[in-house]
Amino acid sequence: MDAPRYRTRNSMTKAFIFEVLATDGKARRGSITMPRGEIRTPAFMPVGTGGTVKTMYMDQVRGVGSDIILGNTYHLMLRPGAERVARLGGLHEFARWPYPILTDSGGFQVMSLSKLRKLTEKGVTFRSHIDGAAYEMSPERSIEIQGLLDSDIQMQLDECTALPAMEKEIERAMELSLRWAERCKTAFGDQQGKAMFGIVQGGDIPALRLRSAQALKAMDLKGYAIGGLAVGEPQAVMLEMLDITCPELPADRPRYLMGVGTPGDILKSVARGIDMFDCVMPTRAGRHGLAYTRRGKVNLRNARHADDPRPLDEESDCPATRDYSRAYLHHLVRSQEALGAMLLTWNNLSYYQKLMQDVRAAIEAGAFDVRVAEISEGWARGDIPVM
Amino acid sequence: MDAPRYRTRNSMTKAFIFEVLATDGKARRGSITMPRGEIRTPAFMPVGTGGTVKTMYMDQVRGVGSDIILGNTYHLMLRPGAERVARLGGLHEFARWPYPILTDSGGFQVMSLSKLRKLTEKGVTFRSHIDGAAYEMSPERSIEIQGLLDSDIQMQLDECTALPAMEKEIERAMELSLRWAERCKTAFGDQQGKAMFGIVQGGDIPALRLRSAQALKAMDLKGYAIGGLAVGEPQAVMLEMLDITCPELPADRPRYLMGVGTPGDILKSVARGIDMFDCVMPTRAGRHGLAYTRRGKVNLRNARHADDPRPLDEESDCPATRDYSRAYLHHLVRSQEALGAMLLTWNNLSYYQKLMQDVRAAIEAGAFDVRVAEISEGWARGDIPVM
Repeated sequence: MDAPRYRTRNSMTKAFIFEVLATDGKARRGSITMPRGEIRTPAFMPVGTGGTVKTMYMDQVRGVGSDIILGNTYHLMLRPGAERVARLGGLHEFARWPYPILTDSGGFQVMSLSKLRKLTEKGVTFRSHIDGAAYEMSPERSIEIQGLLDSDIQMQLDECTALPAMEKEIERAMELSLRWAERCKTAFGDQQGKAMFGIVQGGDIPALRLRSAQALKAMDLKGYAIGGLAVGEPQAVMLEMLDITCPELPADRPRYLMGVGTPGDILKSVARGIDMFDCVMPTRAGRHGLAYTRRGKVNLRNARHADDPRPLDEESDCPATRDYSRAYLHHLVRSQEALGAMLLTWNNLSYYQKLMQDVRAAIEAGAFDVRVAEISEGWARGDIPVM
Repeated sequence: MDAPRYRTRNSMTKAFIFEVLATDGKARRGSITMPRGEIRTPAFMPVGTGGTVKTMYMDQVRGVGSDIILGNTYHLMLRPGAERVARLGGLHEFARWPYPILTDSGGFQVMSLSKLRKLTEKGVTFRSHIDGAAYEMSPERSIEIQGLLDSDIQMQLDECTALPAMEKEIERAMELSLRWAERCKTAFGDQQGKAMFGIVQGGDIPALRLRSAQALKAMDLKGYAIGGLAVGEPQAVMLEMLDITCPELPADRPRYLMGVGTPGDILKSVARGIDMFDCVMPTRAGRHGLAYTRRGKVNLRNARHADDPRPLDEESDCPATRDYSRAYLHHLVRSQEALGAMLLTWNNLSYYQKLMQDVRAAIEAGAFDVRVAEISEGWARGDIPVM
């Protein structure tokens, strides 16, 4: 754990407060305080799609060092339904996670998962991928749903363009997203202790990213996300867009890079001034036999582990990482036993959160670049030799 | 927990010792002490088929009050392989369960799961259901495998006849099983602190059950199982076979009813002198949305739970039972989320072990029949009314 935890002047208030506590180059060590708890940034948010971080108990999610989790508005509105979650006391009560929750707007999944969607200025109409039922999603309805879920950090509805795409199409979606940001801001109003973030769009076109960032900045929102990246473009393009976008965003607001990413993506994005991340990678990889470690990614399906009594990493304090043999993990993965996914997901979230803790400490110490080099060397050296 | 736990003269020795501590009618409250721990009887053994009690952490299995778990020889010999488990330090080390383990002989699953099996006096040859590889299983090899797994209580290889069946066929299999019991006894030899149990066969034919029990008794084994029941016959037939068999077995040896059963089956079998049980029911039901409770079986898939903020049982000390709303469990089951199976399996094993604890306390108090009536009334009253 980061020790001592920062206790700021504002930590006991009912407000949403972001403070930059230290910087190292463009990398920022910060803190968001809000009624449900503190978020130490740079922060990684595990994805709890349908009110559960898959295969994990919430006390494990918290135990590995998570300050905030992400909920998917699209999934939750379809099942169990936003009004039902509200009747049951909100998403925190429903899923037994009393700490901050960020929800996406639902737009991304409406576009990627639902059937027969139709997009207009007003919003999107679509059919559920589960039962084909018809739904309408507008900026106002998205904020309403996120309010019913009692989400602490809510996202504007946006239109995210998959890359590669035509510039005209990217521009149209970006301009629509700006108009929807205004409507979401109005719908959200002034809620103490909560925040609504705008989302920078503009694909891989620098001028469009600039225009989007500047227009959103003028709206004076509590935080800014960068969307529409890690959607098929090379990493270099993503990093170029961050180089262009981050300086345009106000320094005193948190910056959230949506859906990113690998540990390497995260280090490179922190170096460019990003404060928050979410990604399904650690949880999804855990269900597919892959372990993230300080020695890089380890595929437990490989036969090399079948007779290996050593744990993934004997120096970890995470039981999944330290106490179970690779031979046992290999067996569980090969046998498709639930415990394999449970243990590897636990390991992966633990590794991601240790990485963020490491990053935060390095920024505080003014040693970010050195630490990034060490971490990257560890990955490059690779896994321990076969016994 | 049963308090105080019985501390017997023999509990510190290296021997396998069974003691009957109290009786109430034919029901027995006993204790098996062996080097890896004490087994309080009547005992329920969760099934850990392939070195994992599905969807459970071993500390949860222990935490709900399990003294011993069962491992399946057939599954473990195919994957990861008995010799491999031995190299890795045995099944206890492999699966991280340092307490007693009972293994079946593999015969039951060879018959029900493998392909192209061929049975002779010598043993069974068969092909793996996983990859079609050829294996031989003899009484000697079964004991060898169970030894490689380092199993504490090993079972003789037997031939279990599915009911209904012709008397001649039942008799042939029973007589073969007796000859195999002798060979297993020889192969097992004299192992301090471990035990090899014989298995009474004879289908639904009283005379054959008698013959089997008497012949096994003459072999002076450390414990006796009753096999070939709960394989398709009515409960009344099973209970009749217990009424015939139990009096023929030596009173100073534990009696294990294999593969049984529902909570109701268990109470009726304890009343007839059974000491040990195993069954996949609590774990399998947990993966199918079913919860065992003191108010009977609850199907969490039912829409009646969708808006119900109440837990399965607010008086339980099991977190899965006490802390999660029915609405959340319903949502997880409907969404096929792993956490649903994890929580319901945890609830079910907790309920089964509480039932056994309850039974043990009732026998000690000489109040077994009264308690059975109360428990049965609780099931019959059914679940709490819809809100």
